[in-house]
Parts: sequence; structure tokens; C-alpha cells
Amino acid sequence: MPKKCVVLLSGGIDSSTTLFYAKSRGFSCKALIFDYGQRHKREIHSAIAIAKAANVPYRIIKIKLPWKGSSLIDSSSKIPVTRSGHIGKGIPSTYVPGRNTIFISFAISYAEAIGAEAVFIGANAIDYSGYPDCRPSYYKAFNKVIKEGTKAKNITIKTPLIKTKKSDIIKLGLKLGVPYNLTWSCYKGGSRPCGVCDSCIIRQKGFRNLRLNVAVH
Amino acid sequence: MPKKCVVLLSGGIDSSTTLFYAKSRGFSCKALIFDYGQRHKREIHSAIAIAKAANVPYRIIKIKLPWKGSSLIDSSSKIPVTRSGHIGKGIPSTYVPGRNTIFISFAISYAEAIGAEAVFIGANAIDYSGYPDCRPSYYKAFNKVIKEGTKAKNITIKTPLIKTKKSDIIKLGLKLGVPYNLTWSCYKGGSRPCGVCDSCIIRQKGFRNLRLNVAVH
Repeated sequence: MPKKCVVLLSGGIDSSTTLFYAKSRGFSCKALIFDYGQRHKREIHSAIAIAKAANVPYRIIKIKLPWKGSSLIDSSSKIPVTRSGHIGKGIPSTYVPGRNTIFISFAISYAEAIGAEAVFIGANAIDYSGYPDCRPSYYKAFNKVIKEGTKAKNITIKTPLIKTKKSDIIKLGLKLGVPYNLTWSCYKGGSRPCGVCDSCIIRQKGFRNLRLNVAVH
Repeated sequence: MPKKCVVLLSGGIDSSTTLFYAKSRGFSCKALIFDYGQRHKREIHSAIAIAKAANVPYRIIKIKLPWKGSSLIDSSSKIPVTRSGHIGKGIPSTYVPGRNTIFISFAISYAEAIGAEAVFIGANAIDYSGYPDCRPSYYKAFNKVIKEGTKAKNITIKTPLIKTKKSDIIKLGLKLGVPYNLTWSCYKGGSRPCGVCDSCIIRQKGFRNLRLNVAVH
């Protein structure tokens, strides 16, 4: 029996690469996709397309955060943009309070219910927006929560890309066959990427460093 | 301005007492109630009644765990019962994988969004069903997750009743004016408490130790 895992899949570069990576490591994967009221709801379609391309079953969890508190889920506030090509310092308004903690908690529940031994997440603390819930210390602490708070005890959160540069993530993904044309990054979620939000800028930088077409979507 | 907190409210003895306790400590409370497909859905009505009795605003979060994995959310499996008056050892089938982790993750999100400094939960590791996510070590680990993974950093999970006997919880609650007649404990969630599930037995024991009517509901 292959080892089972749950993979958090947003439909962006990092989570899509993580899914293909987990598969390449011999895991039988289940993808978990969240519809949490994000502005870029179209990333959900990308996530589904990626799961299908990877031939991995997926589930979509719909949640509602009635308290907002983030420009990513509150359409009355603005997504920060920059024309300089460099993202700002500090934690931007796109940070969603508790988001990764909620995602991981569902993934842990799923993993425990199906007897999976790992939860994969494409968190990255190198080319990222500065969110605290993308850093290694957070995942280390969460693994302790699992050890103390579950019946299974043996589930581990895996963050294989956490210290990898975006361009190296893409290089790895291309080797693994990730169809990046199906992925979506832009926070604004319009019909075309805006090109000026943090997520677009980080994506562009990754492709540009590999001398690939930055417009790949 | 009073300190703000979020209180996880199930409608049972422990969470109801915790809500009144947090109020008595000067917190401005927001109650968070979960509709997660529990068999004893009627505890939600108790939770609402308790929030109203405490004059505290509440929100209900509806979630769906499509993977089941617990007799508490899967009506095709049986709730364990005993006629001996003593609950069994080990973790029973009513354990819901990741449940408290999910509840707390939403509470953290809520707390961070409204600038609250505490999340109160009525977890108890003395008179309880043996769930791992009711023990102090779990909450200690989770506080580290908050410190590492939130922008606010200063939110603390408070478990004021974790080492208190059920009868002492009730004694405290009676002083604080908790209307226990409005609370609900039975896992089966019928029109009357079954009297033989773990939750009924623990409840009975608490009231009996105080020489109070065990049938109080």
C-alpha cells in the first residue's frame, strides 16, 4: 500500500509543484482545495485543473470567514500594488488572519480520518509576501500540536519548498511535468493577471530568472 | 476599553461555564458556535440560549467534514454506551479527528480580525472522554503556533477549567449564574438525554457529587 498524504492545493505555483513533488515521492495524494471567499476565486478552477492534470482526487471545502480582516477576502479594501517590481516589507493587507491554520486543521482532520501520514503544503519563506504562517517555525510548532492533539500522532506537515527560491521551484516543477499554464497567482483574480500585485511580481521574478516567458499563465 | 475575547461555545457545561467565567474576568466576549454535522445538533440551540442568557453576541460557523471518521458525525456508526456508570479507557469513537484544531483555528482568525487578546475554550482533562485535544500539552503547543503564525502574536488560548473536576466546574458556574437547565450534554441528541453515553455519565457524576438533581437539563 502506498503512503497516503493530503496536499493543500491553491492552484498557484508552489502548491501545484508540491502536489507533483509528493506524487513523485510515491505518495497516494488527496488534494484539498478551499473556497474561502478569496477575491481570486478563479484560482479554484486552476486548482481543480491541476488536480486533474496530476490525476489526483480532490475535495473542495467551502468556508466563510464573516469577520473579514484582509484585503484578500474583503472587496471593499484594496489589494496593494507596486510599479517598482519589488514587493514591500512587512506583512501586507492581503494576509488573512488564521488562514493557513484553518487550512491545515482541515487537512489534519482529513489525514487522520483516512490514515494518511503527511500533510503537504507549498509554503515558501523566500519569495513570499511576508506572511508569518509561511515560516518554518510555524510549521514546526504545528507538528507539535498534531503530536499532542491527535489520536494518530504520526501525521507530519511537510513543507518541501519552504526554503527554495521561486525560480528553483519552477525548475523542479518543469522536471516533474507541472503544467504551469494552468496555474493562477494574481490576487485580483481578473480575466488577466494584473502584473502589479505581490503575487504577480513574485511569479514574474521566478519565470524571468529562468529566462522563461513571464506571462505564462 | 475592555479586553476582548472569543469563547468557543458548544452549549455544554464546560463551555457555558467558561463563557460566564470570561465575562466575570472583565472580558468583552464574542461566542463562536459550530454546526459541524454533530448528531447532537440540539446542543447548538443550547449554545444560542446560553449566549443570550449571558448577553453575549454569537456567530455560528457551519462546516462540513466530508470524511467523517467519528461516531459523533457519522450516523451509520454507534455512540458507545455503558450501564456501569463508568466510562471506558482509551480514546472513544466519538473523537472527531482535528475537531478542536479546526474550532481553535477559526477562533484565532476571529480573534485576530477583531483585535481580541484571548480565545477561551472549556477543555477539561479531568472528567472527560479521553480526547487528546483536551489536554494541557496540546494547548501549550497551540499557543506557540499562534505566536509564530499570526500577525497579532499576542493572542492566548485560555483553558481556565482544564484541571477542574466537573463538580467544581458546576459549583463555580452556579456562583456565576450559569443557567445549567439550558445546557445540553448527551451525544445522542434525542429529545431526552440517553443517560448512558460518556457525556451523560460525566454530567451525572458532576451533579451527583454536589447532591444536585442529576436530571437537570
